[in-house]
Amino acid sequence: MVDLPDKRTAFMDWYLAVVEGARLTDKRYPVKGMNVWTPYGFLARRRLDTIMIREIEATGSVPLEFPTLIPETEFQKEAEHIKGFSTEVYWVTKGGSTPLDVPLLLRPTSETAMYPVFAIWIRSHKDLPLNVYQIVNTFRYETKTTRPFLRVREIHFFEEHTSQATEDLATERVASNLDAFARMARALCLPYAAVRRPDWDKFAGAHYSIALDIPIGEARTLQIGSIHHYRENFARPYEIRYEAPDGSQKYVHQTTFGLSERLLGAIVAVHGDAKGVAFPSSIAPYEVVVVPIPGKAGSGDTIAAAKAVAERLRARDRRVHVDPGDERPGAKYYRWELAGVPLRIEIGPRELERKEVSAADRLGKKASFPLDRLEAEVDRRLAQYDEALYAAANAQFRSAFAVALTVHDLAASKHVRVVPWCGSEECGHRVEEAIDGSLLGTPEGGLPLPLPKLEKCITCDASEGLRWALAGRPL
Amino acid sequence: MVDLPDKRTAFMDWYLAVVEGARLTDKRYPVKGMNVWTPYGFLARRRLDTIMIREIEATGSVPLEFPTLIPETEFQKEAEHIKGFSTEVYWVTKGGSTPLDVPLLLRPTSETAMYPVFAIWIRSHKDLPLNVYQIVNTFRYETKTTRPFLRVREIHFFEEHTSQATEDLATERVASNLDAFARMARALCLPYAAVRRPDWDKFAGAHYSIALDIPIGEARTLQIGSIHHYRENFARPYEIRYEAPDGSQKYVHQTTFGLSERLLGAIVAVHGDAKGVAFPSSIAPYEVVVVPIPGKAGSGDTIAAAKAVAERLRARDRRVHVDPGDERPGAKYYRWELAGVPLRIEIGPRELERKEVSAADRLGKKASFPLDRLEAEVDRRLAQYDEALYAAANAQFRSAFAVALTVHDLAASKHVRVVPWCGSEECGHRVEEAIDGSLLGTPEGGLPLPLPKLEKCITCDASEGLRWALAGRPL
Repeated sequence: MVDLPDKRTAFMDWYLAVVEGARLTDKRYPVKGMNVWTPYGFLARRRLDTIMIREIEATGSVPLEFPTLIPETEFQKEAEHIKGFSTEVYWVTKGGSTPLDVPLLLRPTSETAMYPVFAIWIRSHKDLPLNVYQIVNTFRYETKTTRPFLRVREIHFFEEHTSQATEDLATERVASNLDAFARMARALCLPYAAVRRPDWDKFAGAHYSIALDIPIGEARTLQIGSIHHYRENFARPYEIRYEAPDGSQKYVHQTTFGLSERLLGAIVAVHGDAKGVAFPSSIAPYEVVVVPIPGKAGSGDTIAAAKAVAERLRARDRRVHVDPGDERPGAKYYRWELAGVPLRIEIGPRELERKEVSAADRLGKKASFPLDRLEAEVDRRLAQYDEALYAAANAQFRSAFAVALTVHDLAASKHVRVVPWCGSEECGHRVEEAIDGSLLGTPEGGLPLPLPKLEKCITCDASEGLRWALAGRPL
Repeated sequence: MVDLPDKRTAFMDWYLAVVEGARLTDKRYPVKGMNVWTPYGFLARRRLDTIMIREIEATGSVPLEFPTLIPETEFQKEAEHIKGFSTEVYWVTKGGSTPLDVPLLLRPTSETAMYPVFAIWIRSHKDLPLNVYQIVNTFRYETKTTRPFLRVREIHFFEEHTSQATEDLATERVASNLDAFARMARALCLPYAAVRRPDWDKFAGAHYSIALDIPIGEARTLQIGSIHHYRENFARPYEIRYEAPDGSQKYVHQTTFGLSERLLGAIVAVHGDAKGVAFPSSIAPYEVVVVPIPGKAGSGDTIAAAKAVAERLRARDRRVHVDPGDERPGAKYYRWELAGVPLRIEIGPRELERKEVSAADRLGKKASFPLDRLEAEVDRRLAQYDEALYAAANAQFRSAFAVALTVHDLAASKHVRVVPWCGSEECGHRVEEAIDGSLLGTPEGGLPLPLPKLEKCITCDASEGLRWALAGRPL
């Protein structure tokens, strides 16, 4: 048992110690930035995928999977897109000892894999909308420092690609994606801001980009997802056209929605504390761990009772782990708290005698209750725990922002700044220089903060076209 | 609507027409042998994965995921293994425009990715057994003709890797894998033979290999999976050792169990017929399709009734698709039969009036029943359909084999041969020459065929050490 670094003052040290201590990942694989999904980490990821699948399929999107390798010739069709990615793709140049005629790249994202095929699939307005998604691994030759889940070279990735008949329908799809993400984030007890990026920071090839940002660590922000409106920007080079009801040929309007394993990193970062990870029950590999406490007569009875408790909960589809190992109970508590298990149930000789169990949730709330109320008490306590986790995350989220009305206010602070902005690129860059960071953009649908009246731009003093913008230092 | 090629006389033409006609795959992706998993094909694959996950986790195996890319330096540690794969791996040589210091290969299988890390994870006998699996894509630079699902360059792959304390425990794991596969195959209504490959045809690096083979098409066989006992063959070069209870250092004994998307190809090949695919309900993307039949008064009422039927079945976790499109009913029947949907329900004005539905299963069995018995009738009819499918597959399986007692009997035939064999490599190769194929090996646990008494080897006339062996032409 070792003390973790302090989350507030040494965030990244804390984060790295926690993801390894909880055994969510193993970085000892011999390629930098490509880590092993350990069984425990994989189970969390599988839960995350399940939530994403449930919410996106509820909006009528269907799964499919495109190949991992993309021919160089297809990749080069959209000029801005290739410019955005060309320095960070992995190239496959040989099969066996034979040089390939056309080099293949490992997908960094799948526009250039999918769109040549969409051009074949889409013929008529009856083929629209085409709403499809895939959950696959993508690859980026990162040159920055890699961090488990936050910046890796092989990325577990969710990507929806939709094709719509008109620009307005594509705009509606963006709104539907925002709703779907709101439901996902709620299931993960994760507050976030949807931020429309300034034009100079949108995705390569996009008409506009909405990022899903959270404050993280010491005055940093983390983009945990994005939704893009492509208008006809890809449809034209890839010739994705349909015959409208009036017989005319039109280009489709496309959107994409991307999420990744960063969400898992965000959950660790937001909910974690001085004891380690704290998983919301929706994503916890085990919602409940049952620890038998040996008595003077040995541990046989309590182990049997622990297993019986686990079976009852599993019969209700709870994910439960029994830990009958020969460590001291205190060492087990430490380990499962570090691992973020929402609810621990203890069964010792006293509990056996009284026909009850003791329980402690990951936030420290303790109670004993009769064994015959087991299922109902576990349901209730997990629901209460999730609510408490969400309330704490919301409080932390709100306190991460601070309004800055003048350039002077932008000076060093531990907050993400909320600034009045006239919308000009010049003023945006001035804000960026002042904080040595980025103007993240304008929040869609407001922020949960008390904001003063918009009066003048933080840098140029203009009083026209004002909006609130976020500024911070992306991780 | 076009006639399909004849399955019996033109198997591969039939197969290719069926997988494309059913829209299980799209081969028009611009890299040969790398196909698109269409939504319909992907849903079948997801069901297949679900069955594999259920059965392997029931044996105590846990999921994880290793990186896709393997450094050349790790790959080269096991000499036979690299010899087996070196001509068919894809090499990643550049990141952006920078040549990589150590070339990386796309995993063809994951021994050389996992075992360096297992050497870190495994320290003590308490760390054993280590039973883990992953479902990932693997890559092989195939030089033979590619075929959807059967031989592709990006392969959807299931691989279990286990480490055991002793050779006997590894042998037990092989038996446990055979049991798990038996349960998977039963769920897929798929008869198969578990065949211990001759030494000259075992997996690169294995102590022995058991293949899971099915007869397919015209006197061909298809390996749909394999289970390998590695003994210490990988543990020694990768230094995977543990401290035994007596304090000594020992090498682990390893096993692997591999399955792939070939299983989906096998299901198409075995159960399909002149009308197209016939999915067992366990794997069908849709178990039921509901077709409203328009009456004179239009189709509004029957569409509403069809949707109500679908909702009732979905409430029971059935996978149901409603097809209210404006095609003729006959065209819809043709399409859903080609796609292999187990049960079709029709609702027209007559059914509405009588408060009943008409149903036809994919094998042509028809009936009408009252709407208030919907759920029970669907359960019953799907179960009957699966049994009928399995019975037909078993009859087909048995009729695919023929005993050959002399080299003369090996002459051209449409059967997989069952031959008495002395076990020598020389005699094995003589059989192979005679059939222009392979001695597949000896069936584990017998074959469901009447077999005469073993008297003498098919080629050398020896009467000692005899066993039955299968011989055929692998696809």
